[in-house]
This record gives sequence, structure tokens and C-alpha cells, in this order.
Amino acid sequence: MSEVRLSVKGMSCGHCVAAVEGAIQAQDGIESYSVSLDDEEAVITGAPDINKLLAAIVEEGYEATLISKN
Amino acid sequence: MSEVRLSVKGMSCGHCVAAVEGAIQAQDGIESYSVSLDDEEAVITGAPDINKLLAAIVEEGYEATLISKN
Repeated sequence: MSEVRLSVKGMSCGHCVAAVEGAIQAQDGIESYSVSLDDEEAVITGAPDINKLLAAIVEEGYEATLISKN
Repeated sequence: MSEVRLSVKGMSCGHCVAAVEGAIQAQDGIESYSVSLDDEEAVITGAPDINKLLAAIVEEGYEATLISKN
């Protein structure tokens, strides 16, 4: 299990946070997650497919990039 | 049938517009409507209960006030 930290740009409100959370939830291998509007970040524990995870967030209309994976 | 024009403050994105649209749609007596993020306005034709309409939008987390009813 690893901790994945993503930069997520373009969220403007709680609905946006919920949309990003939904994109994360829909992935396989998610253990837990949190999405911060203020920090423009998502922190995920588990073993998701990073490319699919990023693509799902981009699909919702946000910029998503991998910051770190530990 | 009348045209109801509302000021709707606090929308920041398309999800917010959709939430306001949903609040309008749920009302009785709606003929048609449009919600503008840029103008911070909703224009509704029909014969809705204005107080219920405003309350439904406020319930979604936005400031809603009646501008005009013709």
C-alpha cells in the first residue's frame, strides 16, 4: 500500500471537491482518500492505477498531476 | 405566466449552476428557465411560488433575491 499525492487544479467549490472524490472512489485499489480545495491536492492511500486515477480526475474537468508516491 | 428574474450569488462553477437549475426544476409551475454564472442571475418563466423558489436556491447554498417579476 502506498500514499499517492496529487496536485488537483481548478476546483472552485464543494461540488468540485465532490466530483474529484467521486472520480477517486470509482477507482480500484483505493484504501482512503482526502481532497483539499484550499491545498489543491488529493492524498490517496492504497494501490490505485495512477494513470487511470489521473485520467478520471481530468475527465471531471480538472488538472491532475502526480506530486509523489511513497 | 410571468417572467421571474432572480439574483443568485455564490455560484463558482458549472456544478453550482447545475445545483441551482436542479432547485428550480424541482418547483411546481416552471415553464422554462436559464441560469447564468457570469450574470449571477436566473430567469424563469412560469408561475412558481416565489418564496419556495428562493428558499430552494438558498437551501443549495446560494444567495437568492427577487429582481423582478413581470
